[in-house]
Amino acid sequence: MTRERIVVLGADAAGMSAAHQALRMAKQVGREIEVIALEKTVHTSYSACGIPYWVSGEVESSDELIARSPERHREMGVDLITGALATGIDRDAGVAHYSHDGVDKSVGYDQLVIATGASPIVPDWALRPNGQLVGGVAPAKTLVDGQQWIDLLVAAAGAESPRRVVVAGGGYIGVEMAEAARARGLEVTLLTRSAVMSSLDVDMSSRVEKQLAEAGVQVVGGAQVVGLEVDHRGWVTSVETVDGDVHRCDLLVLATGVLPATEFAVGAGLETGQWGGLRAQPDGSVASGIWAAGDCCEVRHRLTGDWTFSPLGTHANKQGRIVGTNLITPGSRSFGGVLGTAITRYVHGDTHLEISRTGLSTREAQAAGLRVSSMVTEGRTASGYMTEAAPVAVKVFADPDTRALAGAQIVGGRAAAKRIDTVAAALWSGASIDDLAEADLAYAPPFATVWEIVQLAARRLADSL
Amino acid sequence: MTRERIVVLGADAAGMSAAHQALRMAKQVGREIEVIALEKTVHTSYSACGIPYWVSGEVESSDELIARSPERHREMGVDLITGALATGIDRDAGVAHYSHDGVDKSVGYDQLVIATGASPIVPDWALRPNGQLVGGVAPAKTLVDGQQWIDLLVAAAGAESPRRVVVAGGGYIGVEMAEAARARGLEVTLLTRSAVMSSLDVDMSSRVEKQLAEAGVQVVGGAQVVGLEVDHRGWVTSVETVDGDVHRCDLLVLATGVLPATEFAVGAGLETGQWGGLRAQPDGSVASGIWAAGDCCEVRHRLTGDWTFSPLGTHANKQGRIVGTNLITPGSRSFGGVLGTAITRYVHGDTHLEISRTGLSTREAQAAGLRVSSMVTEGRTASGYMTEAAPVAVKVFADPDTRALAGAQIVGGRAAAKRIDTVAAALWSGASIDDLAEADLAYAPPFATVWEIVQLAARRLADSL
Repeated sequence: MTRERIVVLGADAAGMSAAHQALRMAKQVGREIEVIALEKTVHTSYSACGIPYWVSGEVESSDELIARSPERHREMGVDLITGALATGIDRDAGVAHYSHDGVDKSVGYDQLVIATGASPIVPDWALRPNGQLVGGVAPAKTLVDGQQWIDLLVAAAGAESPRRVVVAGGGYIGVEMAEAARARGLEVTLLTRSAVMSSLDVDMSSRVEKQLAEAGVQVVGGAQVVGLEVDHRGWVTSVETVDGDVHRCDLLVLATGVLPATEFAVGAGLETGQWGGLRAQPDGSVASGIWAAGDCCEVRHRLTGDWTFSPLGTHANKQGRIVGTNLITPGSRSFGGVLGTAITRYVHGDTHLEISRTGLSTREAQAAGLRVSSMVTEGRTASGYMTEAAPVAVKVFADPDTRALAGAQIVGGRAAAKRIDTVAAALWSGASIDDLAEADLAYAPPFATVWEIVQLAARRLADSL
Repeated sequence: MTRERIVVLGADAAGMSAAHQALRMAKQVGREIEVIALEKTVHTSYSACGIPYWVSGEVESSDELIARSPERHREMGVDLITGALATGIDRDAGVAHYSHDGVDKSVGYDQLVIATGASPIVPDWALRPNGQLVGGVAPAKTLVDGQQWIDLLVAAAGAESPRRVVVAGGGYIGVEMAEAARARGLEVTLLTRSAVMSSLDVDMSSRVEKQLAEAGVQVVGGAQVVGLEVDHRGWVTSVETVDGDVHRCDLLVLATGVLPATEFAVGAGLETGQWGGLRAQPDGSVASGIWAAGDCCEVRHRLTGDWTFSPLGTHANKQGRIVGTNLITPGSRSFGGVLGTAITRYVHGDTHLEISRTGLSTREAQAAGLRVSSMVTEGRTASGYMTEAAPVAVKVFADPDTRALAGAQIVGGRAAAKRIDTVAAALWSGASIDDLAEADLAYAPPFATVWEIVQLAARRLADSL
């Protein structure tokens, strides 16, 4: 090797952000590098978050979800090998091992970027004795999963009697797949171990649950699935929970979360944390010459400093870009952590429900040993006399001693949820609850009430402290 | 007087916020106060910002624009006198003079709150020799103005040939009244002295101008009005600009701005500034026992420390509340200044145009002697494959030396403009351009691109510095 070789494991958001940023930076500083990327699937840089909207039919083709095809990455200078599953790393020799079409291969590296993402959690109850998924049961993580769901839902919707989908898992993907199944004309039961959107405080998640129920989604909280019943074809017919309840279904979405895909890295002696994720330094390094970014990593919570697992494309893109920069100019960028910001919606028929959160929930604050006070404020997204006005509830959190802003949760109608960024931006800069209560935010009747609801919520909490 | 008497001049946002907050605080601390409010009109606490949407027909009745009627204020403990125009203050005696139904009266005070708001600027060319407005010419500031505009527009729209409204002034009210006139079926010419939305940088305001023109609004920049032609009835028929251009019209909206209504206060020796506004201390006081809040005040720009004039309901409500608190517990609250945040839209037919800004424009930064770098980034409000995706352009500003964030301007489609709050919240807390580029903002396909456009704009500017 005359040129420095960077090998990237995984060709989605984090890996390809790192690859292209490294190529850009190398060009800037006039350094010769070679970037080889190994991707286990045939797809690169696609929007996993867009899959529910493709499954629902809102997005016509999976092509639209692909930000950059393998061909495009190659044109841009990445030597991309698809169908190549990373199997191990020989750190002393500087060699990555992988399986390509069933053949064991290896590639030497000067620097290695691990960006292998996360894999869906597949509970034992979802598997047949042979280790395959029960018929009618699938996650919704990859483009292959997405195509399978379209086929399954279209077929089920065409059946004579109304068909029912059980969604196991009441988080973001669960709610979005419930929307997709409803859009395809199916009945939906949403089973959740604790509560729907359990990353919210109970008084906020209960608002979500109530509105989903009013929209015709059967929501069952505290429903831990323990087993499935299958018909003679091996197809799911019902779901049994730990309480002995049985929920009939024709299809079952596994929205039970993901975990870092790091098995091969553990074998190489790289340390992983509570969720099995790599724990990179702020610059993205995990060992000498080895870097990690994206969903295969755990990340630091910016407010608590604790490690957490937050598998989102936003972090993956940012981390990948940081690693790509530091590959060429070490130490020049660092990752600032996460606030736990997230957003989703449930839209079907007359229902337009938006949900978002940032910072610490009451439970998260308690777990971190932090004091937190909070208050829910109800209002509207626009002046009450405007047709745009939709109801919204905002819960804000602050430390009652230091008055530091700690988080917010929003449940409301159209234009409600993205307001969470106002709080996230304030939180990121270490604002107090008073800062948020006093800031100069935008008002005109179609856009807000004169006391913007997020600000009103902050003001009311500030007054109570 | 056994009870302490607070006299409030002006019963809109600032005055009534002060009045009720004082009553609340007095109750809390067990202090006996009496609040007398003098209001020159018969209306209290109405949304002036809502008037264009009432004129357009989107809001059915002016009742909807009234947050609290005089009766309601009285029920809540304010001794409210309508039709009472403040005419002077005797500071030594502690007496406010006013004219009530043409009769001179006076009232003693222990503490006085000046909240007399702002008055439309009426250029000489809009007046007849007798000092009355030319026929067909009116501002759009009060509920009386609003009703007049509804009557005028409905009558004009009912005429045989399409009727044309000239809007003189291309700021927020000008754009909103253009929307209202179009909604009523009239043709619109928007005349502006400099450019439409001139509080934006030219490269952003030109986007607004282009889209307004595409939507059928005739926008004429650099058009300083010097005179009107009137018919035999004294009704406006055309507008002449300094360049000699003549624009035919049947009606003319005066959207030429407002100035503080402080004549009587100047007479009492209270100092006013460049715009004629009172310059209150951060606690709201302007002299011993005298306070001021709302549109009759100038305010400090939070970033430059300079005085500016920013007549908006948001500031009026905040300042009123601060004064109300400090009336009872002096020194406990202070006003943090303004960022110049503002937002509006132009919506008609297929056109949905949103506009917002916060912080310093290039011109404002230069005027304050500050260095500022900026960059325009184009993107979308949602993932490109979603039906929600609308184009948006974001210009961000930062100090190239300190990297301090300095402002942002947004022009785009649906859901574009309220993102300005993300920048405003960051600005309020003294964030750097890097903070905004790195913050954990919310992403899901219906709400944003994976690099949220505001963040992408910040990142690109940050990379260039």
